[in-house]
Formats: sequence, C-alpha cells, structure tokens
Amino acid sequence: MELATIGAIADNGVRRLALSKEDGQARAKVISWARELGMTCDTDPIGNLFLRYSPADSGSLLPPLATGSHLDTEPNGGRFDGTYGVLAGLEAIEALKQSGHIPRRPIEVVIWTNEEGSRFQPAYMGSSAFIDPDRVGHFLAIADKAGVTVGDAMKVASAYYQVDGFRTEATPFNAYVEAHIEQGPVLEETGKQIGNVSSIYGIERFDIDIIGEAAHAGTTPLSMRKDAVVAAVQVIQALSTAFVDDGRIRFTVGKFEVSPGSATVVPESVRFSLDVRHPDQNFLNDVPKVIHATVEKASLPCASKVRSVVSAPSVTFDRALRDDIERITSSLRFSAISIASGAGHDARYLAEHCPSAMIFVPSHKGISHNPAEFTSAKDLGNGARVLTDLIVSLTQ
Amino acid sequence: MELATIGAIADNGVRRLALSKEDGQARAKVISWARELGMTCDTDPIGNLFLRYSPADSGSLLPPLATGSHLDTEPNGGRFDGTYGVLAGLEAIEALKQSGHIPRRPIEVVIWTNEEGSRFQPAYMGSSAFIDPDRVGHFLAIADKAGVTVGDAMKVASAYYQVDGFRTEATPFNAYVEAHIEQGPVLEETGKQIGNVSSIYGIERFDIDIIGEAAHAGTTPLSMRKDAVVAAVQVIQALSTAFVDDGRIRFTVGKFEVSPGSATVVPESVRFSLDVRHPDQNFLNDVPKVIHATVEKASLPCASKVRSVVSAPSVTFDRALRDDIERITSSLRFSAISIASGAGHDARYLAEHCPSAMIFVPSHKGISHNPAEFTSAKDLGNGARVLTDLIVSLTQ
Repeated sequence: MELATIGAIADNGVRRLALSKEDGQARAKVISWARELGMTCDTDPIGNLFLRYSPADSGSLLPPLATGSHLDTEPNGGRFDGTYGVLAGLEAIEALKQSGHIPRRPIEVVIWTNEEGSRFQPAYMGSSAFIDPDRVGHFLAIADKAGVTVGDAMKVASAYYQVDGFRTEATPFNAYVEAHIEQGPVLEETGKQIGNVSSIYGIERFDIDIIGEAAHAGTTPLSMRKDAVVAAVQVIQALSTAFVDDGRIRFTVGKFEVSPGSATVVPESVRFSLDVRHPDQNFLNDVPKVIHATVEKASLPCASKVRSVVSAPSVTFDRALRDDIERITSSLRFSAISIASGAGHDARYLAEHCPSAMIFVPSHKGISHNPAEFTSAKDLGNGARVLTDLIVSLTQ
Repeated sequence: MELATIGAIADNGVRRLALSKEDGQARAKVISWARELGMTCDTDPIGNLFLRYSPADSGSLLPPLATGSHLDTEPNGGRFDGTYGVLAGLEAIEALKQSGHIPRRPIEVVIWTNEEGSRFQPAYMGSSAFIDPDRVGHFLAIADKAGVTVGDAMKVASAYYQVDGFRTEATPFNAYVEAHIEQGPVLEETGKQIGNVSSIYGIERFDIDIIGEAAHAGTTPLSMRKDAVVAAVQVIQALSTAFVDDGRIRFTVGKFEVSPGSATVVPESVRFSLDVRHPDQNFLNDVPKVIHATVEKASLPCASKVRSVVSAPSVTFDRALRDDIERITSSLRFSAISIASGAGHDARYLAEHCPSAMIFVPSHKGISHNPAEFTSAKDLGNGARVLTDLIVSLTQ
C-alpha cells in the first residue's frame, strides 16, 4: 500500500502514467526494496527493469526464471492492476530467502514499461519490444498528447533511480509466470480463490459505418427513409444472434455515434465499434467473414462499411506450467479454476519467448481501471503463496 | 429570388435568423413590395407584420381573410421554407389587382415572427403569441446564446423598416390559408402537384435513459453484464414492433449517446431521443403508456427512465376550406392529394383562432432546412395559383 501513495488520487485511486515522474518514483521505491533483498537491477532500451536474484550457488549462467508485471496505471486507475504482480514477485523472493531455499537458477522480477497504453499507444510496449527489439526505435519516437516522446519521458522517469547494468539483447528466460488481479467478476461470482489462466482471449475489433440519408423526422414516411439508427439496431441484433453466447464469447458495442444527432432529424449515419473476443483461435478466424456478411445484409436499405482496427490472436499458456499451478493450488487446498483472460497482459508477448503462465486473484465486483478496484489482503496473499511455491518448484 | 440574396450563404443557402439584421432587411424589402401594391403594414407586440390590402369598397370593417408565413430561416437554411408563403400571398394580391377583382373583405398577408425557433426557443413565437397575448412578456425576455433578448433583437430588426400602425389585440380573421413547401418527399414520389393539407401531426417526444453497469469488455462474461447499448437496442426493437408502420406514423431515434463511449468498456448508460408523430390524436393519446410499458420491460436487466419533452396535439384543418381547395385544384386540373403535415407550421396556432388550411407544393427529394431545398418555378406558380383562386373564392 506504500506504493499506492505515489500518484495517489481520490477514493484510493492511482494515477501513475507510463514514464511519468510518478512512475519513476514508484520504480525507485521498488528497486530499493529489491536491493534490500540482495537483488540487482538492469534495464534495456525500452526501459524495462530486471530485478535479479542470483545468490551464490544459484547457477548464474542458466537462463533465469522470470516473474513480474507493470507499475504504470490508467489515468483514473486503482492500486492493484500490475503493481500486484511486481510486489508478489518480491514477496516470493523474500519468502525464498526466509525458507533458506537456494534456487538452481537466477530469478528475475521484471517491471515492464507502459503496459496500459493510455499515455503512449500502443499498450504492452515494454514486453512487445523485449521479444522484438526491432520495435524499439519506432516506440521511442511515439509522443503523448503533450508532444513528449517515449524517449524523452524515459529520461524523466529514470532520473529517479540508478541501474546496475544495461542489456542490449533479450535475456533468454527459462519460463515466465505473472500474478495479476482478474479484472473480471468470475472468481468472485464462482467463489474461487485462484484462477489458473489457460489462455488470453484473442480480439477482433471493428469500426462499422452505417450510411443512410438525413431527413425531416416529421415529413418523411418510414417507408421512404434510410434511417441509419434503425439499420444499426438491426445490425447489432443480427450480430447478437450470429454470435451465440457460449459462455466464453465477449461481444461489446462500446461506441455508438450518430450524425447529425438531432431529435428531429432522421439519422444520416452511425459509426459504432464492435469488439469480439474469444479464447479459441478457430472461432476468431471466422469472425471477420461473419461480420462482413451480417452487416451487409442487415444494414439494408442503408449502405455499410466494416473496417478492422484490431486483430490480435489468442494465446494459450504452457500446459506443464498450468499443471504445476494446479498441483500447487490443490496441495495448498485453495479453490481454483481454469480461466481464460479476457484482458490482455504482458504475458501475451512473453508466451512467444518462453513457456509462460499466469495466476489470477479475485477482483471485487470485477472492477478494474478504476479507484474502486479491490482485492482483499487474504486473496492477494493466496496468489503470492501460489507464485512462491511455483518458483520454488521450478528452481529446485 | 431577390429575397434569397439577403442572408445568402454558399450553395444557394440562406441564413436569416429570426430578428437579425438580415431578417429586418428582408422584411423591409417585402414591405416595399407590398406598398407598391397599395398595401399598408401594421405590427404587434411580438413583431408580427400584417400587410393589409383593403381597396375602396372592400368592406374594411369586416374581419380580413389572412394568408402568409415567415421570413426567418434555419442557420443553414434554404430559399423556400416560409418565404414562399409570404411571396405567394403578395403574388395573389398582384393577380387580384390585375384581374380587377374587388375583395368583399380586406386581405392580409402576415409575416409571423420567429417560426423556426433556432435562434430563440420556442419556435412559432409570433403565431402562438398572436393567439395568446399572455405569452408576449415571457417571449420578449428570452435570450439567444449571445445573451440578446427577443425584445432587444426586435429593435435591431425593426430599425430597417417603418410601420403604419400598432395592434395591441389579435385581429379577428375570417380565415387563414398558408402556402408552404412540403418539406417531405410524398408529393414528388407520388407525382402530385398540390398537397391539400388535412392536418398537422401531433408530437410525443421523449428522452429515454438506459442505466446499466460499466465493465471491462474482455473480462466480463455476457451473462454477468448490464450492457446499456444491448438493452437500448432491445428497447428500440421492441418500440419498432409496438408502433406498427400504418403509413402515417413517424418514429425517429435521432440522438443516441453512450457513456463512457469507449470500444473496450461495456457501456454504463445510453440516452436516446424518441420522437413519435401521428395525425390522429386518439393514437397519440396512447403513446406515452405504450412507451413506458415497453421501455420498462425491454430494458431489463438495465434500469430505465422515460421523460416527456414535447407533447403537442395534432391539428385538423377546416373541412370547408379543404373542400374549397379540392374544388379549385380539380377545376385547374392540378393533380392533388390530401396530405398530413409532419412538420409544424404557424397554421397550427391559427387553427385555434379561425378556420385554417394549408396548400403544399413539392419539395425536391423532400429536402428542407438545407441549402439544397428546391421547388421548381412551375410548382411554386401552381401553388400561388391555387392560393389566388382560393382568395378570390373566399372574398367574392
């Protein structure tokens, strides 16, 4: 909770935008705690921090086991998203030390740069540049709304801390395990303590334009109209029918903008967003063609345009790691379920680099990216315990 | 077309806001033409202008026969809306003079103040204050967005012209007949030259709020959502079904605003407008209860609020006048149909004052309140001819 005072806003909220002064201060604080545990801190070209625990006899030449998450938040964020995964990593190191466990390979707690993507787009900048260093040059030149580039902001944030080394190449990892709050209501609703994350949902997101004709709301008979709102409603209904709720699909129309937007004018056009997510890539592969066909048919007599804005494949986590997590939760007598993550995480990219997995703890009412974000100390502790046992198990 | 040069904007458009300098200049021009025809000009407390034709032997003590419309336009208006009815009145007077017809009662061409209601709300200020002078005090104090009141604006506009008399009380009219462009596509689509207006649609307009819960678009299963857009779509579909298209109903959702309006957030709330119009008052009487019941049921699991913002009864025009118009169009061999006006007009209020009627001419593609508003010279002439013959018939 000490970290939540850096960038604190009303109602327990946190505003700690990527590479801001507050982000730099939070990093400095976490580095100081890591050093108290005997850890070192390296950085890389995109500003990721690698907090390394490599005591004598720990096989310092072997690829490390990695854990971690991010410290940046949304503008009106909470105390747990990201931060929890970093601190759970440090707690695991502390527990290892207290138990006298000497890991057979180094352990690194990673702080990924700019996971949220709210100040600088795209999100997942640190983890995606880590696995593909060709992205770094482009990322460093990206500016926020005030015109400050990632490169300049990195100087601001890094002025608050000192590092021990600079890594020009991606460190090979033995495995990566990230603890995180669920950011959804499923664990709480089902009364489970731990989510053993099977996969991350893939996303197909579209902007859909419906183009009709403006007309006088009083003088134009319904049969002579090309009403863009009526057509958009038909389209959304048809899409709802086309994408049957299998319990896993996510289907969201979050934006819906009408032009000209007057109560007395038949709408000329509508632009709405459609975000479809699913853990099964075979399902996602069919989504674009279903959307194109459904929109074209259901939008008549209006015209339509469908534009893909995001197409991110689903990611399946490592089967052996998931089996390890299942064995550990079972031996700890924690109630656990296999769960697919509808939110994206840095682990999405790490899964392309090494065997990866995630451990979820419950989010109260599923609220996230909001000051009301909350997970009980008990639930946080349970997740850290699973992470610790997993790290011990993987470094024995 | 000379009048269209006052307040001219691009693409044949006209911007002549109520009681602006341009409105004053247009009034001055029309008054000068009226005086050339031997007419006088009175005004009243809300600035309506009464252009009176009362030659010797015309029974100057009898209630006059009135015609007219308005000269103000929408901000991005056209050349015909309103202006046509005023100029058709003057053309009728000119034709009467040339034919040597001596009317048995005075004829007045009225210019109603602020019909559009785009600079000063409400619309129909002149005609509604004419029939209910108690409204004048309130209207004069209403300000536009710049803080200028109707009273002050009236001084600006009236500086451009001089009047012959001031009327403190509403003049009794023998009848009122207004010529106007249809502002809808029906005459053009059905190939008719004249619309014999049977009635003006009544309006029931609502703001409808759907209140759900914001949630993460990726992490929240559909069954755990209260998605305000999904509920609003259900509601609009249910309302479309409840209000079957009988060829006469007008049903428009022109505004639709989503909060927070992000592609990745399940919508927390939606506010949309619903504008229902019908010529049959019995139908309109049932509209509010149908809407309340439908919205409450179809918005589940979200909450809802329905607020009435406009409730204007339908108006039926005088049967004898409509029979006169039918007889005249028939004898002139003009193709004509009985048509209900979906747009409001000053004649709505005059119908409470005296027997009233309206004559419509076609609007190209039904476009109005737009520079592209267009009616051919031939169609305009046909309407003026019907008005002239009706005036002759009513003053014989």
